[in-house]
Amino acid sequence: MTTTHASPQAKADSTSDANASGESPAVDVAALGALLLGRWADVRREARRISVDPVIRRVPGENVREHRDRTVKALHRLVELGVTGRAFPKRIGGQEDPGSNISGFEELVLGDPSVAIKGGVQWGLFGSAILLLGTQQHHDAWLEDCMKLRTPGAFAMTETGHGSDVASVGTTATYDPETEEFVIHTPFRGAWKDYLGNAAESGVAATVFAQLITQGRNHGVHAFYVPIRDPQTKAFLPGVGGEDDGVKGGLNGVDNGRLHFTNVRIPRFNLLNRYGDVAPDGTYASPIASPGRRFFTMLGALVQGRVSLDGSATAVSKLALAIAIKYGDVRRQFSPEKGAGETVLLDYGRHQRRLLTRLAEVYAMNFAHEDLMVKYHEVFSGEADTDENRQDLETLAAALKPLSTWAALDILQEAREACGGQGFLAVNRIAPLRADMDIWVTFEGDNNVLLQLVGKRLLTDYAKRMSKPDAATIGRYVADQVGEAVVGRTGLRQLGQNLLDFGSTARSVGNVRDTEAQRQLLTDRVETMVADVAQALRAGRKLDAQAAAELFSRHQNDLILAARAHAELLQWEAFTEALEGERGAGLDADTRQVLTWLRDLFGLGLIERNLAWYLMNGKISASRARAITDYIDGRLLPRIRRRAVDLVDAFEYPDELIGAGIATGDERARQDEARAYYAAQTTPAQ
Amino acid sequence: MTTTHASPQAKADSTSDANASGESPAVDVAALGALLLGRWADVRREARRISVDPVIRRVPGENVREHRDRTVKALHRLVELGVTGRAFPKRIGGQEDPGSNISGFEELVLGDPSVAIKGGVQWGLFGSAILLLGTQQHHDAWLEDCMKLRTPGAFAMTETGHGSDVASVGTTATYDPETEEFVIHTPFRGAWKDYLGNAAESGVAATVFAQLITQGRNHGVHAFYVPIRDPQTKAFLPGVGGEDDGVKGGLNGVDNGRLHFTNVRIPRFNLLNRYGDVAPDGTYASPIASPGRRFFTMLGALVQGRVSLDGSATAVSKLALAIAIKYGDVRRQFSPEKGAGETVLLDYGRHQRRLLTRLAEVYAMNFAHEDLMVKYHEVFSGEADTDENRQDLETLAAALKPLSTWAALDILQEAREACGGQGFLAVNRIAPLRADMDIWVTFEGDNNVLLQLVGKRLLTDYAKRMSKPDAATIGRYVADQVGEAVVGRTGLRQLGQNLLDFGSTARSVGNVRDTEAQRQLLTDRVETMVADVAQALRAGRKLDAQAAAELFSRHQNDLILAARAHAELLQWEAFTEALEGERGAGLDADTRQVLTWLRDLFGLGLIERNLAWYLMNGKISASRARAITDYIDGRLLPRIRRRAVDLVDAFEYPDELIGAGIATGDERARQDEARAYYAAQTTPAQ
Repeated sequence: MTTTHASPQAKADSTSDANASGESPAVDVAALGALLLGRWADVRREARRISVDPVIRRVPGENVREHRDRTVKALHRLVELGVTGRAFPKRIGGQEDPGSNISGFEELVLGDPSVAIKGGVQWGLFGSAILLLGTQQHHDAWLEDCMKLRTPGAFAMTETGHGSDVASVGTTATYDPETEEFVIHTPFRGAWKDYLGNAAESGVAATVFAQLITQGRNHGVHAFYVPIRDPQTKAFLPGVGGEDDGVKGGLNGVDNGRLHFTNVRIPRFNLLNRYGDVAPDGTYASPIASPGRRFFTMLGALVQGRVSLDGSATAVSKLALAIAIKYGDVRRQFSPEKGAGETVLLDYGRHQRRLLTRLAEVYAMNFAHEDLMVKYHEVFSGEADTDENRQDLETLAAALKPLSTWAALDILQEAREACGGQGFLAVNRIAPLRADMDIWVTFEGDNNVLLQLVGKRLLTDYAKRMSKPDAATIGRYVADQVGEAVVGRTGLRQLGQNLLDFGSTARSVGNVRDTEAQRQLLTDRVETMVADVAQALRAGRKLDAQAAAELFSRHQNDLILAARAHAELLQWEAFTEALEGERGAGLDADTRQVLTWLRDLFGLGLIERNLAWYLMNGKISASRARAITDYIDGRLLPRIRRRAVDLVDAFEYPDELIGAGIATGDERARQDEARAYYAAQTTPAQ
Repeated sequence: MTTTHASPQAKADSTSDANASGESPAVDVAALGALLLGRWADVRREARRISVDPVIRRVPGENVREHRDRTVKALHRLVELGVTGRAFPKRIGGQEDPGSNISGFEELVLGDPSVAIKGGVQWGLFGSAILLLGTQQHHDAWLEDCMKLRTPGAFAMTETGHGSDVASVGTTATYDPETEEFVIHTPFRGAWKDYLGNAAESGVAATVFAQLITQGRNHGVHAFYVPIRDPQTKAFLPGVGGEDDGVKGGLNGVDNGRLHFTNVRIPRFNLLNRYGDVAPDGTYASPIASPGRRFFTMLGALVQGRVSLDGSATAVSKLALAIAIKYGDVRRQFSPEKGAGETVLLDYGRHQRRLLTRLAEVYAMNFAHEDLMVKYHEVFSGEADTDENRQDLETLAAALKPLSTWAALDILQEAREACGGQGFLAVNRIAPLRADMDIWVTFEGDNNVLLQLVGKRLLTDYAKRMSKPDAATIGRYVADQVGEAVVGRTGLRQLGQNLLDFGSTARSVGNVRDTEAQRQLLTDRVETMVADVAQALRAGRKLDAQAAAELFSRHQNDLILAARAHAELLQWEAFTEALEGERGAGLDADTRQVLTWLRDLFGLGLIERNLAWYLMNGKISASRARAITDYIDGRLLPRIRRRAVDLVDAFEYPDELIGAGIATGDERARQDEARAYYAAQTTPAQ
């Protein structure tokens, strides 16, 4: 099941290759598959096998009650399979292997996103808060029960009133030295914890994020372990209340809900005290002096949520494209001329534009995610846990997660439409998956807020190269969200190096198809956009707070577009590195050629999408701009179309995992039967 | 309930207007509301009242069984209310008022899209096929039972193997002169009728589209009235079989299903014979000699489906924006500087970009739809039923339906994200509505296929101005889908006139903000794009069929983009006509000013989105291009933001109809409570 799934029918069909003119390089599907699978290939293959387990696989049409109940069973099945403790300490039965842990969970979305997310809540959020924000005493007390699902738990960070702005949550944890307890309290309706998986039904405990107040002083947001329900009766404990969030647009196997607390007392022990502790007498102490840096360090410890969303969005995007491209390779509609056979959808230029540009994008997402995973594993396994790597990791996750999750929705929708009415039927999987993935774009950080964060970091880097007063002005704009923790870091120095290396030679680049020309154009755009925003914000030096806020608001869209351009560059660099670097060294020349076309389609597609910017800024001439579109439509798309099925076969998704009949033989059988019927017909047409 | 719903809270909140600099013109919400409601205002208001009826309103979380059952009840309720026969003949109890009929049904999506679509299947498709393709004998036999829902019926056109290409359906209707019957037969699996509303459960009859074969000759697709189920037992009649399409991505109140026929015999009478008849001896006759023109005339009679999808997509888009803008006007997140109050979402530049550009688009959709409705009513009421008007109507519907249905999905998604986690909860309506509306983009004609149809008509018009051999070449590309029926028509001559009037003066236009400058730029783009495609296709003159098909495929994307540009121009013209023409004459100066900003945002937004094209073709200079973006971000968005709530209040959707607490007071109450709490706080911050 884990070997390459070739599509013998597709290869035997000469008609679908009919518009091939000239040679068509062959793709080594197995080698390309290995490149895509990356470092944690075995774990990913195992998780794909698990994803077709009937308890784990999504059942079309099950109602909310059935879906929630099956999802609970699925989590117990994962416990039985022993795959829930990979990130946890070995002494409690774990493997201390964060890369394997996330890689496995990412693939579970191919079975049912609700299972992946409810598992992510239990082991990735609730468990990780204990693991990464707590200390050994907490691990010993709670982690094994978490791992074995004996203590289902909620991750109570978000409130109705504060999602993206976590620092402003309203819940309080006030220390009482008399009893050595914290008093957890919800002061108003907007401070109810909200949208929490496991909170509506399953959860018997929660890691609650609250403002830590001791000795009359607020030390900012910290996490506390709070029992919320009687494990036997599942009734709320005294002082705890809540509500079910009810039916959602998707992901209805997860029991999201609300929690509120009325002076709930927990032992001092229950403060997850790795980054901040309170002594019995109420004295606060922290290894990180700066409250801002402390807050961002705690949040940064939970970066794996964003990492896994990036990976799962990529996995689902690949599935949607595999279905739509395999269907488009056999489905026929309209004849070019009377009496001619009907044309295969994927031979239409528009259909190629719709699906193959997105195929290039998903390859870029895959390779960029692999980079992110490696960085994540280096930091959290301790292989290379430096401040700089943590900083790079957080910025990379904040940059990639918005692009891949938006792309997933776009790709699922385009695949749905490219399959017509079939795409809307639940049995063909695309539409329900889109509904489930919708929330990906706003959870673990709203995509726009994440990109703004990346934009502010780009500004910070830029400010370091500016004169002092200008740098101070920029500092004013970046301090509020980025926090002092990052000022002075070098997460983005890569960009500066690129510019030093290549200078401003875009206009003299002879051939925009070259790797270096693409790199130069993409890099130059990021740098120029950031500089333009910085320049515009300099006027804020002499403004009052209100006017400065308005000035920022006026340029906020540009800043987010600059961050997006930066993230696109990171994806392009990852694709190019996979192609030209060590990892891709084993590819044969033909496979490398096809992959280069795909990379060019991604790179030139980015440039084409932002052509107005390149033209306005004199980076590309009008005639060269035209040449890019001509090259995409006239060369790249027809070439890639001929190997499109190979390129999705390299995802190594077996038919059983794909699970949509239209992509695994049903449509081909119908087409064959219809053509045989007409071949035997004698009734003259009208 | 039908009067203007002002939002007193929003108006009393000076903070949300805090960044107003200078005067802010007032909007006459009632006058603007009347302009948006258009000619069938009373019917629309009535339908909005009906939409909040508990039987008709969507229930969050109801399962497929419950949803289907309630939808059936809802249809009976519509019969009770007497609103199901507006398009039908007066002598059977109808009103012969097609405009009222469609206007009313469009608004029902605000209650439940499943109710609107199941009603549309019954009265708009099944009923209209009898009405418009049948003759008086058929009206007398079947229409009253249709109207009263005594005969639930399916519209059996689409097959599993043929959706967009209706002319190629495989089902046959072979005339047997011995018994004077037609034999309805499904020759292979791909010819099963598929995705038919009412087919899985409710339908006892169907209008079946099949190849009419008599005297050994195929006369093309015709419609037949075929009983399919025993009205009492609901068992399939002999020879009829079918399947349930099962759960779908949305619209699960409609029982879509499949039908197949094994030599099912129906009387000769059951041929809906308005455009083609068979005599008892089997002789075929038609008032339209050309088979192609006959086919397109029959299809054209059913244009109302596309008209109503355009209108219902617009209605839902307005609802989503009303929710997101009202929420964005009160929801706060992040403080610009420490100690400052939190900023209202709609005061962020990015949030304005996301929602207000779409608000401008939805106004354009509304006004363009009103034009379409008027044209539809003129043709089908007989007020002005000319060939030319029919042609214009079909082209307008094919152009507007793709844009508005894609826009609806885009707007619903952006509104969902702009409301964060709240947007994902079913109680806030946006996510379930998006799921339901998804199918809008491929039914009643796949959007890409419809735009290609428009593109081919643009080419046809263009060819008339070309030399003979060139025109013949173009004719080769447009004949297959457009059919001979339209060659020589003048549906798009308007475009040519615009060019004659304004010439090629875009580069010398002093101010791109002027109405005439916008018109010139938008018109010029359409004309140039069409000419470019025509020019590229001239090379096809000497190619064989295969090579000619490849050439077309290579330029198919450009053709579809040209059609899209044409449709955008039509929307812009409709907005401008509403503003400057007779209909908008009653607006006061301030309201006209605000509406002009909104029209400018729509027009300049279109130009900005296609800036690369304008720059490459030398229509706009780089400095003017920059000025457009500056003007949008710096002027238009902040100005429109101040009146944004008025602009959605003008939709006249009362709170009960909006039905999402986050937009009707809940969020404001939470914000007020939180601010009061913090105002009373004394604990010093960290």
